[in-house]
Amino acid sequence: MNEWNGFQGETWKKKINVEDFIINNYQEYTGNEKFLVKSSKKTAKVWSRCQKLLEKETITKVLDIDTHTIAGIDNFDAGYIDKKNEVIVGLQTDEPLKRMMNPFGGIDTVKEAVNSYGYTMDKEIEDKFFEYHKTYQEGILDAYSDEMLKYRKAKVLASLPEEYGRGKILGDYRRLALYGVDYLIKRKKKDLQKLTKPMNFAMIRTREEVQEQIKALEDIKWMASRYGMDISRPASNAKEAVQWLYFAYLSTIKQNNGAINSFGRNAAFLDIYIERDLASGTLTEEGAQELIDQLVIKLRLVRHLRKNDYRDTLIGEPAWVSESIGGMCDENKSFVTKTAYRFLNTLKNLDSSPEPNFVILWSQKLPETFQKYVSKLAIDTHVIQFVNDDIIRPIYGRDYAITGCSSPVKLGSQMVYYGASINLPKALLYAIHGGKDEMTREVMVDGIPEVEGDKLNYKEVIQNFLTIMNHFIRVYVDALSVVHYMQDKYGYESAPMAFLDTVVERKMSFGVTGLATVADSLSAIRYGGVKVIRDQEGFITGYQVEKEFPRFGNREAKVDSLASDIMKLFAKALSAEHLYRNANARVSLQTMADHVFYGEATGATPDGREEKEPFSPGASPSDGMDISGAGASLESVAKIPYAVICEDGITNNFCISPNALGEKESERVTNLLQLIHDYFKKGGEHLNINVLSKNQLFNAQKNPDKNPKLIVRYAECGVRFNQLTRGQQEELLSRTFHEDL
Amino acid sequence: MNEWNGFQGETWKKKINVEDFIINNYQEYTGNEKFLVKSSKKTAKVWSRCQKLLEKETITKVLDIDTHTIAGIDNFDAGYIDKKNEVIVGLQTDEPLKRMMNPFGGIDTVKEAVNSYGYTMDKEIEDKFFEYHKTYQEGILDAYSDEMLKYRKAKVLASLPEEYGRGKILGDYRRLALYGVDYLIKRKKKDLQKLTKPMNFAMIRTREEVQEQIKALEDIKWMASRYGMDISRPASNAKEAVQWLYFAYLSTIKQNNGAINSFGRNAAFLDIYIERDLASGTLTEEGAQELIDQLVIKLRLVRHLRKNDYRDTLIGEPAWVSESIGGMCDENKSFVTKTAYRFLNTLKNLDSSPEPNFVILWSQKLPETFQKYVSKLAIDTHVIQFVNDDIIRPIYGRDYAITGCSSPVKLGSQMVYYGASINLPKALLYAIHGGKDEMTREVMVDGIPEVEGDKLNYKEVIQNFLTIMNHFIRVYVDALSVVHYMQDKYGYESAPMAFLDTVVERKMSFGVTGLATVADSLSAIRYGGVKVIRDQEGFITGYQVEKEFPRFGNREAKVDSLASDIMKLFAKALSAEHLYRNANARVSLQTMADHVFYGEATGATPDGREEKEPFSPGASPSDGMDISGAGASLESVAKIPYAVICEDGITNNFCISPNALGEKESERVTNLLQLIHDYFKKGGEHLNINVLSKNQLFNAQKNPDKNPKLIVRYAECGVRFNQLTRGQQEELLSRTFHEDL
Repeated sequence: MNEWNGFQGETWKKKINVEDFIINNYQEYTGNEKFLVKSSKKTAKVWSRCQKLLEKETITKVLDIDTHTIAGIDNFDAGYIDKKNEVIVGLQTDEPLKRMMNPFGGIDTVKEAVNSYGYTMDKEIEDKFFEYHKTYQEGILDAYSDEMLKYRKAKVLASLPEEYGRGKILGDYRRLALYGVDYLIKRKKKDLQKLTKPMNFAMIRTREEVQEQIKALEDIKWMASRYGMDISRPASNAKEAVQWLYFAYLSTIKQNNGAINSFGRNAAFLDIYIERDLASGTLTEEGAQELIDQLVIKLRLVRHLRKNDYRDTLIGEPAWVSESIGGMCDENKSFVTKTAYRFLNTLKNLDSSPEPNFVILWSQKLPETFQKYVSKLAIDTHVIQFVNDDIIRPIYGRDYAITGCSSPVKLGSQMVYYGASINLPKALLYAIHGGKDEMTREVMVDGIPEVEGDKLNYKEVIQNFLTIMNHFIRVYVDALSVVHYMQDKYGYESAPMAFLDTVVERKMSFGVTGLATVADSLSAIRYGGVKVIRDQEGFITGYQVEKEFPRFGNREAKVDSLASDIMKLFAKALSAEHLYRNANARVSLQTMADHVFYGEATGATPDGREEKEPFSPGASPSDGMDISGAGASLESVAKIPYAVICEDGITNNFCISPNALGEKESERVTNLLQLIHDYFKKGGEHLNINVLSKNQLFNAQKNPDKNPKLIVRYAECGVRFNQLTRGQQEELLSRTFHEDL
Repeated sequence: MNEWNGFQGETWKKKINVEDFIINNYQEYTGNEKFLVKSSKKTAKVWSRCQKLLEKETITKVLDIDTHTIAGIDNFDAGYIDKKNEVIVGLQTDEPLKRMMNPFGGIDTVKEAVNSYGYTMDKEIEDKFFEYHKTYQEGILDAYSDEMLKYRKAKVLASLPEEYGRGKILGDYRRLALYGVDYLIKRKKKDLQKLTKPMNFAMIRTREEVQEQIKALEDIKWMASRYGMDISRPASNAKEAVQWLYFAYLSTIKQNNGAINSFGRNAAFLDIYIERDLASGTLTEEGAQELIDQLVIKLRLVRHLRKNDYRDTLIGEPAWVSESIGGMCDENKSFVTKTAYRFLNTLKNLDSSPEPNFVILWSQKLPETFQKYVSKLAIDTHVIQFVNDDIIRPIYGRDYAITGCSSPVKLGSQMVYYGASINLPKALLYAIHGGKDEMTREVMVDGIPEVEGDKLNYKEVIQNFLTIMNHFIRVYVDALSVVHYMQDKYGYESAPMAFLDTVVERKMSFGVTGLATVADSLSAIRYGGVKVIRDQEGFITGYQVEKEFPRFGNREAKVDSLASDIMKLFAKALSAEHLYRNANARVSLQTMADHVFYGEATGATPDGREEKEPFSPGASPSDGMDISGAGASLESVAKIPYAVICEDGITNNFCISPNALGEKESERVTNLLQLIHDYFKKGGEHLNINVLSKNQLFNAQKNPDKNPKLIVRYAECGVRFNQLTRGQQEELLSRTFHEDL
């Protein structure tokens, strides 16, 4: 292949193996950021046009909706922002920020969304789609058992992907650039020949899916041809590599509207092409930055059409266009390249932005210059998040990427079934209420003895709690089987799946929301003594704690071990369950906005949390309760075991005031760096950092117009502060903003 | 329930059990046909209008097509033939004989059919259905393996339901009349509550299907309301019982276009309502006959839209609206009622007609008067077929019905996956050709040694044959898994399934075509000595038989046992296979028109059959080769074991000249009766009888216009002779028309 001239290695040429291609060809960069350049004139023009458009888009206003077409890989004409200045092309629809209708989860959902923005759906599409295409939402509601519906209504399990795509499936989009579409089709056809025995249900489904993947690849070829590109062959230079890569990703976001649309781990890969072009003199540094800038512009325009209530569960309009950067290749060499810098440099060249979601795969051994560079960027922009490469790499290998916030997947060979999260404090309350829901008083779990007397007995409560947690897990497993069965049946994501191995390893995510509340409540019962308040019918309506008790987030072994033990028991119970399509269970502590949504539906808890108050996000300590300093807070979270127990990710949303890090910038950079080092050394998996004071946020809340661009890391994503709901803003403000290290 | 006043029994009132209702309430009738009356004036008017319409419909011309609507239970407005004279109402579309488009198997198939009649499909339907609804044909072709496609192309296995519905699923439509739709919905909802563990793939599919059944029941209610009927409650009199029953059936033929749309076994059931009304003086015999006449008129109008090539595989346009009549309740009492006579009387009142397909469940113990009555009718009309209740009842119980031609199912608790048939002579030819196809010379089965020398060695051939037959069976099993998976996924028949038990017993049919050719060929090799003719490459191109050999159909144990042994080995090999949805395999010798279609694609066989000549239909001896008299022919077929081995049915298509049965009518009746008795006593399962001379058919072939109404039993169905293709007519004419008993 001429396109591969100059590339080293053999294995990747014989069969698909992007990792082998990278290992054999990339050049680590250990220098500093001084080589970086500003945006090109073309980029400046394109970005300026985008900024104007972005300003017109508000929480309640979209720029446009295509009401005559439905989502699909090749359903839209070519679209441009500013054609003559665009170096990298391709939009979800035929105009920037024009949204598309994706009715596979429910035509009513789309209709409602369209109407809420003052548009009207094409009548023919509405009628015919309704008549001809069942949606996964209908299928899911058909198949849910009465018990599942009950748990959904009680908000024990209420954030599963029912009306939108499940997302989180991350294709290895680099494959398109390296191999071209024809080779990928050829490989898929070859795979099919081996998939014949036994011709049972699972095999037939797989065969049909692979054929759908082949059709998706053909569609992507057509889609690219609308932009005048022939992607049947491999990319032959850096510009084509960026373009092909983006087309592959674009196919996914044209086809699907899941919450999580991650991009992968592309810097080192693209760097190989850029270095080859730089060496041959066909590219300059300005040209290289231009490619990355323009790619990033495109990634900032990813949009889906959502109903208004979407904000309640998913803050702002995150798309989780996560790009993983850094990480180690082996003990001595990192994956940091100049292109890693070029990606991060877009935060300067094009302003800060929550998307794409840059995830630093942090290792103690990353080049020091790079560590300092990203630490400074994190302080300046609040858009960068960190995951711990040193604990993830041993499990997922060196060629993984983060999908969403903190969930790793091996690129190309693994996929994840998204599982949202379960409301764990409800299990505790049901344990106290003899299996009844604390709000509706309906029996939710049979055979749970009522707790008697005036004071909660720890042994009694914990015994009930574990029985109920196991029951929750079974309902959760079954509900996810239903959800993913129907998503596969009515909304199969052939685009990202086309960029994965045909025989793919399946992971299934199970999330826990409210861990800190549960741990604190159990600690209150065990160490504080909790008296109960009962109404005339004897139903417990409130709690009185007798004395102080240790709370999670304060380096207190008594309660930190409770949190860890719960997660261990949760993971253990789950491991005994058989999952849909033989997936392996993975637990996460990542809750998007479920912690607010679930909190609002949950009664008072023994730790003193009042009825309807939010839980804390992810694995974070209860809002405002980590009062022993930043180090103590981080150490408690870091103790939650990652390997085996919580391999889907443990998000820690952490706020520290700038002054706590020091007065001078260089001091702050060094201190933040040390803080990350310490946290990850102790076993932390993920860190979102807001270097902000509460006052800054109070001001932003009071004067939203004056702070339109303030970005915070809220739960699992970066988001503009003024796009949070009032409730979400309040929850953020009630967190601890650490004032010292 | 007021509607049940006067009905006896308790079990059927507590849960669905139509059999128990019948047993407790029906009155056997052992008298003669003298009580029967002519059609009412209203019926005469309705039928006269129908006759005019039917005359306008020809093989190449349909009366009308609704090109703006697609098939569905409640997709069409009410339609009438002659509203004020119609006592029983309901049409597939809004006009009699107007056909509907059923695109679930393929929008192109429908488009081609529509165009072939000079119509044009609504463009919006064409585009949107194509875009939004994948069809089972697409799904099947996606999932077929390369080997399956090869076997399909070679016409080893080429008649599976890929572009039309599979049919053959027989709902217990009586349930709607006895219980009303609301109760049926209630029962289905109750069933759902039990279907929760384990929530695996199979359970989720079942749950969704049951919900689809509930939606179908709701749709049927709406459909009936278009005709001004409220079917939410049980039928309260005979007229309603006939009407409700017909609405239930109508939902199936509005929704699906499978080849086989059987009606069930309704005479004794309806007789209970009629007797109650007669007893209360609210109905007269004329009124009773009117209900049945008008029901039968409706059943004669069942139509589907087909492509022109449909005739090549399915003769004429059969709908297999089979109504099973007679059979024994126990050793002493038959199910013959006055309404059994009333159904058969329609053949006099309304002319003879191939549909509905009356199937007499024959027992040696049926009332003699009834035996004589149907024997005479069979001679006069050639539309009646017979199956052997005495061997079917011990296996399927007393409340079974025939679906299609000779396949029994327990009503309400069993369903059958239609399986068409496999071309068994190809297995023999592959055995001779070292696993290669005799036409294309392509290798079809690996590892089969070539036969050497000038003369075929029986042991060598039979060994290869059995290996290949087992391989055929595996391909067949896998192909049926694919077909039924996709039919379930893209064309699920919620209407008939709504009238079956939720936890239903599944049977799967596997058909064998060309048994007589295989048996005769093996006999030729073993007893006659077969020399082979080879071309320059050594490929066998023809055969020379050295001496006479026994042929199947002549009461010759040597070859008859070969035929039986093959079927036993076929059934045994099949029983080791695991089938789709844990179905039980059932083998049939029933070939619709596959015997012509497959024959045309098959090379010369060692028994002297020339290349491309048709095989004989079903289990019948090779055309013209049963030369030892009617008794000998029948005895050979009767020896093929039914129980365990061929429980899906063994069709025997039998022609006898009127003179062979005697000169006088009474003599003919007695002799035919004796012939059926003897055949069934020896173990025969099914008999189609044409009491015709070859001359009658030659004349009909020469002067089609003079014999427009000549009906013959061709393969598994009755059909007007002039609707057969020339090839089919020739094949019929080459059969033995027995000239003596």
